[in-house]
Amino acid sequence: MNLILLFPTDFDTNNSVTLSDSRFNHLKTVLKVDQEQTIRVGLINGLIGDGTVTLITEKSISLNITLSEEPPKSLPVTLICALPRPKTFRKVLHAATVMGVKEIHFFKSWRVEKSYWSSPTLTEQAVKEVIYDGLQQCRDTIMPKVSFHKLFKPFVEDILPTISEHSEKIVFHPSPTASRYMPEESKKYSLVIGPEGGFIPYEIELLQKVGFLEARLGARIMRVEQAVDTVLGHTLISTL
Amino acid sequence: MNLILLFPTDFDTNNSVTLSDSRFNHLKTVLKVDQEQTIRVGLINGLIGDGTVTLITEKSISLNITLSEEPPKSLPVTLICALPRPKTFRKVLHAATVMGVKEIHFFKSWRVEKSYWSSPTLTEQAVKEVIYDGLQQCRDTIMPKVSFHKLFKPFVEDILPTISEHSEKIVFHPSPTASRYMPEESKKYSLVIGPEGGFIPYEIELLQKVGFLEARLGARIMRVEQAVDTVLGHTLISTL
Repeated sequence: MNLILLFPTDFDTNNSVTLSDSRFNHLKTVLKVDQEQTIRVGLINGLIGDGTVTLITEKSISLNITLSEEPPKSLPVTLICALPRPKTFRKVLHAATVMGVKEIHFFKSWRVEKSYWSSPTLTEQAVKEVIYDGLQQCRDTIMPKVSFHKLFKPFVEDILPTISEHSEKIVFHPSPTASRYMPEESKKYSLVIGPEGGFIPYEIELLQKVGFLEARLGARIMRVEQAVDTVLGHTLISTL
Repeated sequence: MNLILLFPTDFDTNNSVTLSDSRFNHLKTVLKVDQEQTIRVGLINGLIGDGTVTLITEKSISLNITLSEEPPKSLPVTLICALPRPKTFRKVLHAATVMGVKEIHFFKSWRVEKSYWSSPTLTEQAVKEVIYDGLQQCRDTIMPKVSFHKLFKPFVEDILPTISEHSEKIVFHPSPTASRYMPEESKKYSLVIGPEGGFIPYEIELLQKVGFLEARLGARIMRVEQAVDTVLGHTLISTL
């Protein structure tokens, strides 16, 4: 953890918190903080700042909190990803959070296995835990919004046009006419990533119909999480 | 596995192989191949092509092999990475292999823990297994060369100048003067990635002395494997 996330309920007073959960354990056993030591903290969906240790007991730690800095700027990307297998879903969600994506959509496509939708990794609490972990890793506080769409056609025809309005619309797909994705600082991007094995022709046609242009990722077959890192990392460096 | 790697010792004749190890298990239980089915195969450090199943028994599978295509083009990057913790080392090695890096150097720096050097993940056999897995994932056959350098100063002063000759020399480091890394198709790149926690000033100064320029990755703190995916993915898309 490079930042400890704080929640409104943690505060004893306006500027002090007492932690006794996994954050306490992390501070005590991993970071091994001492009395008067200062660590990075951030209020969920709020400012970042410092926490100075005022008291450590066997069961809890108290910190004096000063919040003064804005969280890092977000990535100008809406990530739209075919729902991957549960383990990969967690990786993609974590990676997107660390990279600063603030809107993530997971959708059904032909090659998404039905069983993925009933995974416990998709529950609100499980999703939150991955996001908290990502935010604490990258020193951010702003939670991404995560949505799930279980029907491909209504999603693409009715929801995607609204989601992707006023942005460059890109779908990564290995077609001969696919162009190179070169993001610019002043623009926003809606990036669609397909399932393992790729889209079927009908799906690509429907995405094109609502304005998505094909971009390529090269001949090498990547795991979904590496493809996500690749397109988000490329966007990050290109728009720094 | 999106390609089955073959080795010279697998061949019964010029154009047939019999497999009875983990590749056999994978073909039988994961891919569930049938008689006469064709799968992608590649000869280690050689051509790619098709394997057609001629016989499946309880213990082995025989394939008729035609090799005709060149492996995908490599990434114009020499990756030079501070040795990460063993689990991360495997991820970095796998990611770099999938992205098409053909020369990888791991080096000691101040914030690399001594214990990492005695990890069994660094043995020749363990390294090979990760590489084979990466090549089979991305459908490549050309093995990257992996080197280890246990002393920082001699590595940077005596070896790094030779390794990085005729290439753009970049070190990722969050300094105010760091520039944006924008790779071009016609150039080669030597990319240095520091340890968790970053370089100490002495190390950055020595890298600059031998010609490395600082480039930035933004304010978000990434895990080493995500930083590697980011810089390699950015290079991949920019030079497609």
